[in-house]
Parts: sequence; C-alpha cells; structure tokens
Amino acid sequence: MLGRYLNNVREKSPLVHNITNYVTVNDVANVLLACGGSPIMADDINEVEEITSICGGLNINIGTLNDRTIASMFKAGLKANELKHKVVLDPVGAGASKLRTETAIELLNQINFSVIRGNISEIKTLAFGKGNTKGVDADLSDTITEETLDEAVNFVKEFSKKTGSVIAITGAIDLVADKDRCFVIRNGIAEMSKITGTGCQLSALITAFIVANPDNILKATASAICLMGLAGELAFEKMVEGDGNSTYRNKIIDTIYNATGDILDLGAKYEIK
Amino acid sequence: MLGRYLNNVREKSPLVHNITNYVTVNDVANVLLACGGSPIMADDINEVEEITSICGGLNINIGTLNDRTIASMFKAGLKANELKHKVVLDPVGAGASKLRTETAIELLNQINFSVIRGNISEIKTLAFGKGNTKGVDADLSDTITEETLDEAVNFVKEFSKKTGSVIAITGAIDLVADKDRCFVIRNGIAEMSKITGTGCQLSALITAFIVANPDNILKATASAICLMGLAGELAFEKMVEGDGNSTYRNKIIDTIYNATGDILDLGAKYEIK
Amino acid sequence: MLGRYLNNVREKSPLVHNITNYVTVNDVANVLLACGGSPIMADDINEVEEITSICGGLNINIGTLNDRTIASMFKAGLKANELKHKVVLDPVGAGASKLRTETAIELLNQINFSVIRGNISEIKTLAFGKGNTKGVDADLSDTITEETLDEAVNFVKEFSKKTGSVIAITGAIDLVADKDRCFVIRNGIAEMSKITGTGCQLSALITAFIVANPDNILKATASAICLMGLAGELAFEKMVEGDGNSTYRNKIIDTIYNATGDILDLGAKYEIK
Repeated sequence: MLGRYLNNVREKSPLVHNITNYVTVNDVANVLLACGGSPIMADDINEVEEITSICGGLNINIGTLNDRTIASMFKAGLKANELKHKVVLDPVGAGASKLRTETAIELLNQINFSVIRGNISEIKTLAFGKGNTKGVDADLSDTITEETLDEAVNFVKEFSKKTGSVIAITGAIDLVADKDRCFVIRNGIAEMSKITGTGCQLSALITAFIVANPDNILKATASAICLMGLAGELAFEKMVEGDGNSTYRNKIIDTIYNATGDILDLGAKYEIK
Repeated sequence: MLGRYLNNVREKSPLVHNITNYVTVNDVANVLLACGGSPIMADDINEVEEITSICGGLNINIGTLNDRTIASMFKAGLKANELKHKVVLDPVGAGASKLRTETAIELLNQINFSVIRGNISEIKTLAFGKGNTKGVDADLSDTITEETLDEAVNFVKEFSKKTGSVIAITGAIDLVADKDRCFVIRNGIAEMSKITGTGCQLSALITAFIVANPDNILKATASAICLMGLAGELAFEKMVEGDGNSTYRNKIIDTIYNATGDILDLGAKYEIK
Repeated sequence: MLGRYLNNVREKSPLVHNITNYVTVNDVANVLLACGGSPIMADDINEVEEITSICGGLNINIGTLNDRTIASMFKAGLKANELKHKVVLDPVGAGASKLRTETAIELLNQINFSVIRGNISEIKTLAFGKGNTKGVDADLSDTITEETLDEAVNFVKEFSKKTGSVIAITGAIDLVADKDRCFVIRNGIAEMSKITGTGCQLSALITAFIVANPDNILKATASAICLMGLAGELAFEKMVEGDGNSTYRNKIIDTIYNATGDILDLGAKYEIK
C-alpha cells in the first residue's frame, strides 16, 4: 500500500529546495537522486525566494544553523507557504542550545510546516519549549519503548493537532501521526545510528515524497520512513566481514536507488493506532 | 592523443585553489587527488589572494554562493588574472535565480576565464543574459541532440569567440570549443546524472588539466571531459546487482585514480568539427 | 598497551564538539562514530559556548576558516578551557596564508590546547611564526627522515615544553611528544595522502581518545595515531584491482569501525625516545 507513494516520486521527480547543514549535505543530495527526486541547495537570502519558487518543496534543516542561514530559512519558508508549497522542518539538535531551540520554535510560529521530523528529544523540545537533547541524539530517558508507546502515540497526535503539521518521531520505533491516526513503524535497525545523517536524509526523502503525493501527506511520510528503515535492513544484510559504517552509508543509499514500490510494500512493517 | 594531458597532470601535480560549493566539495577534493592534482579550498576574503598565488589554477563554482563568498570569488579571480594563472568558471544554476545569473555574468565581465564549463541551460544563460535552468539541471528543451548538433557547435564557437574563453557544455553530448574548433565528445552515460557533483568534479579536473598543460587549453579540457565520461562508462561496467548511485560515485573516482594516458587514448570518443 | 585507550573510547562514547572545515566534515563525523564517539558540529557564535559545555572535548580545525567561524573558535575554546574540557587544534594550512598563520598562533596564545596536531610544515609555522606549507601539504624540504629524526624529536619535545600541549606531527613518520617523551610511530602508508581528510579525521579521533582517557593525554594521542595509521595499512590490504582513493577512504573508516583494543595492540608500531 505504501509502495505507490515511492512510485509517484519516481514518476514525478520532484525538485526539492534544501537549506540544510554542511555535515550531511552530500548524502542528502544523493539520497534525493536515489529516490527519484532532484535536489537543489541554496541558502543565500538574496536567492532563496526565487529558488523555492521553482521547486515543489522546501526542506529546512537546522543542523549547522547560523545567523545568515537562519534569516534565509524564514524568508524561504514564508515564500513557500505563500506559494502553498510543502515545507518540512528537521529541528536538528533542538534542546541542545538556546539558539537551536528558539530558532526551531520561532520557525514553527511563523511558518506552516507540512511535516516536522526529529528524534523524540527534539520533538519534545518543540512541544514543551525546552529539552535535554544529547548533542544531536535523543536523550536515553526519552526513548520510546513498548511500555511507553501508547503515551507517545497520544503525545504525537496531540502535538500534530496543536501544530497542524504531520509529526514524525524517529528512533527504535518510529511514529508518524496527524491528529487522528498514528503510524507505528518498526522498520530500521540500531546500526543506522552509527552513520551520520540518516535523519537528515530521511527529512529530505519525506519532502520529496509529500511533494509527489500532495493529497496524502501522512501516508507519504509513513512511506518515506518505512523506505529509509527498510533500506537500513536490506543494506545491512549485504554487509560482509570487514564492512563498517562508511560502507553501510553507501549501501543504504544504493538500496534506496534500487527500491521499488513492490519491495517497499513487501518490507514495510507498521500498524496504525 | 588526449592521454598525454593526463600524464602531464600526474607528473606535475598541479595545486588547485577551489572556491566551491559545500554540497560536492569532498568529491571535488578527492577527484583532484585521484587525477594527480592537489586541492586547497579557501574562501575567506582575507586569504584568497595569497592562497591563489601559491596555486597554479583557480576553480570558481557558484553552487552555494553567498554574499561573503561572492566577494572572495572576485578578489581571487582578479588576483589569478594578474598572475596569469588559469581560471575556470562553473556557473552552477545560472538561470535558476537572479543572484546566480547576475553573479556569473559579472564574473565573466570582470575576470578572464580560461575555461567556462556548464550544462547547456547555464551556458545559454551566460550568453543571452537569462535562461530556464531547472534548478541545477539543464532544461529539457535545451538538450543538444544529433539534430541540433550543428547549431549548437556554431553557438559554442561563437560564444568562445565573444568571451575569449574555451567553452565546455556537458550533457548527453559534450561540446568543447574555442572560436575555431569544437570537440564533440560522446563519452559518458545517462546514469552519471543520478550522482550529485559529477559536473563540479569535472570543472575541478579541467582546472588541473589546463594548469598542467598551459599551452593547449582546448585539448586539455577535451581530455578532462573524455576522462570523466570514460570513467563513468568503465565504472558502470563494474557495478553489480544492488549497487546504486552512492557506489557508482565511489567507483567513478576510483576509476580516475587508476586511469592512465593509454586507457584514455583507447577510450576517448570524439570528433572535431 | 595502546589498545586500552580505544576500549575506553568505545565504553565512554565521548561527545565531541567540532568547529571544522566543510571539505572533510562528513568523514570527521563518520570516523567519530566509527571509533565509538559521538560528533556534533556547531559554529555559530551564539551557540558554541553552550554546545561545547555539553560535550567532553572540542576539536578546532581551521581548514576553511572565515571571519565568522574564527570568532566562534575563540569563544568556544575559551569556554572549553574554563570548563577544563580537552581542546585539540588542527592548524590546517598554517604557513600557506597570513590569515591561517596568524589565526593559529593567536589561538595558541589565548587557548590552552591539550593536543596540537599538524604536518611538519604547519607545526614549524606555529613554532617559528612563519613557514612554507605547500597548500595544505607539508613542504618536501621539511620531511622527517631517519636522518633528521633525532633533531625532529628534540624539536617536538621543545615545542611541547614551550606550549604545554602534547604535540603531534604526522607524516611518513609520526611523532607525538610531551616535554619528556616522544612516541615515534611507524604505522600508516603513503597512499593515505591520496585521500582528502585523513589528517582532519585523525584530529577528531585524538579528541575522542583524550576525552575518554583524561589522565593519559600523551598515550591516548599516540593510540589514536597508531589506530589511524594501522587502519590505513589494514584497509589497503583489502583493496582489490580497480579500487582507488574513494573506496580506500571508505575502507579506512570501516576498519576503524571494526577495530578492537587487541587489534591495535597487535598492529601498533612505535618506539619511545
């Protein structure tokens, strides 16, 4: 069922404007190409409105934010809203510094995001105004387990209701919800956290998926999350002795490059709560 | 015949100053090392003159331009001209925003470029002052085909005459010309467009090639273009089931690392018009 | 003997704040994850104090320094000193421009570094106020050979005494010394210089190692250097025909990912002078 959303990405080849961090930007570009999308990176305030205008969606990632690029994020986001383009927020490290927390919250105040994707600590920070993000990783005390799942599902639905955005929390268990329904996704494996940028890549994928599937933001987002997790699983099966996180990074992108709607349909593991 | 230009790069190991985008910069550095050159990246206005002075050539790429780096591009370019160093322009995304178009044209006005390399939409934008670049990709309506080839050859020779630069247009068919002669190159395969940064890498290669072959800019540029395309072909032959664009990226750089003048002589596919 | 320091990194998973260049930043992040550490990159002046406060160590790399990030380096470094965190300096290209030389020397004046790591030309530049760094590579005339080894060992001990920092000079022979003892390390192979960023990666590794081994900075640094060199050796043994510098880069990070204390103990090649 979720496979069709990938097929639509491949068919429509959405152009995605990324204002993103310089750590994982190359992987973000390659994963967008791998899924069938087309990336453009542009962060100067004098061009972000024009660039976002020719794109279908905008992916804002605050991973290495600075004064100059923060201003560009707001300008691009407001323009994208005006044009009714899809906009995704990845609040990398919200909770780890006042600058990140305040920027993310102010972006939320001024811009309508179609989807907000982060780890549990980042999303809690947005919801409660502060958090205990450990660098760019979630704090262990925040981890969603089978025991805390129902509580977390309620939280994510509530936060979606409050913001009007689809909310995606990724971790050992992934949740993606609108105000009524929550996809609980069990794709992906722990080793993915040993690669930098799988979260950044996922936010870019989500942007491409919702641009290509504008009428079904929730399911398109769930589809992108299943694809990323499934790619992590399938790529890991191809690892041989001596391979490590660098090869794993390449194999995950390769797996997305070769993924089809059928593969995704077969491998997606989710329930709806 | 074109193989000797690669041999000269390996022998002379030219130091190349890059003011380039942060998306593909790592691949640019590794491809320069792969061909036998040596990269340095520096974009602060307080050091670009000094850095470019110790290098043999300067590669200016506007892929993620901003106010700060635009000023550095002009300062470095003018200094390189003063020292009679080779300078290459890669007008990434010219036509996609006013900032990119105007910056590229103003760079062209103030700086003498040995070579300008872009896709057809970018080069048309430089020639006609506006264009319809689709993000960082050429617009389909601009594509050079066998039917439009003669017209395109005339255009590129004319634009070379007007600018005094060797002009390289890369795509399914690559053209590189001075005012009198045009190399029509048929190396490379379509899958290369599924990797971010093959164009950026090529502009860096061209810079290394013309620094090492100062008396033959046109042929050295043609040699670099054939090498990149041939590497794309040979690397693709080594792809196995499950490989995708991430592995392909690695294999292309690896192939350049292992390329020799003889391999290039055997594999280069071009005619002169 | 040096293997235990790697084991401690894996056990303690130190969080490392990096203010580093955009060329090799992705490899820096992945190598930190590979050794068991956790990276965060943050360079805005409004957050570097907070970010460095939640980390165990700070890695300052001037590879693509600019006005904005230089100010952040000082602010972060002073804060890290105040908190008695470990701080590492990688003076990339010191000697190649006045900006790099002066910035590195002023950082040295204002901030207490636990470790300073560079190539011989960079370190000489710091010691003598000027140098002849060839871009980001050491000048050939500076190379440490068996003939000049004793002289170099004395130099590095003296410079350590003067600065109060452990000094690491990497090249064909690596030296790492405090004022009394110098590890002379013979791991690593020449092909590593054909990959961009092995030096940057090493400085990040050193930061993680000294955070996890605060009572033994000298040995922890020696351990990180042996690991990087050994990974270069072991990864090279796994190269097959057609592999080049891009694959080699991946295999080195993979090898670090799979390294254990025992492997390091077996493969480390050093003497103490």
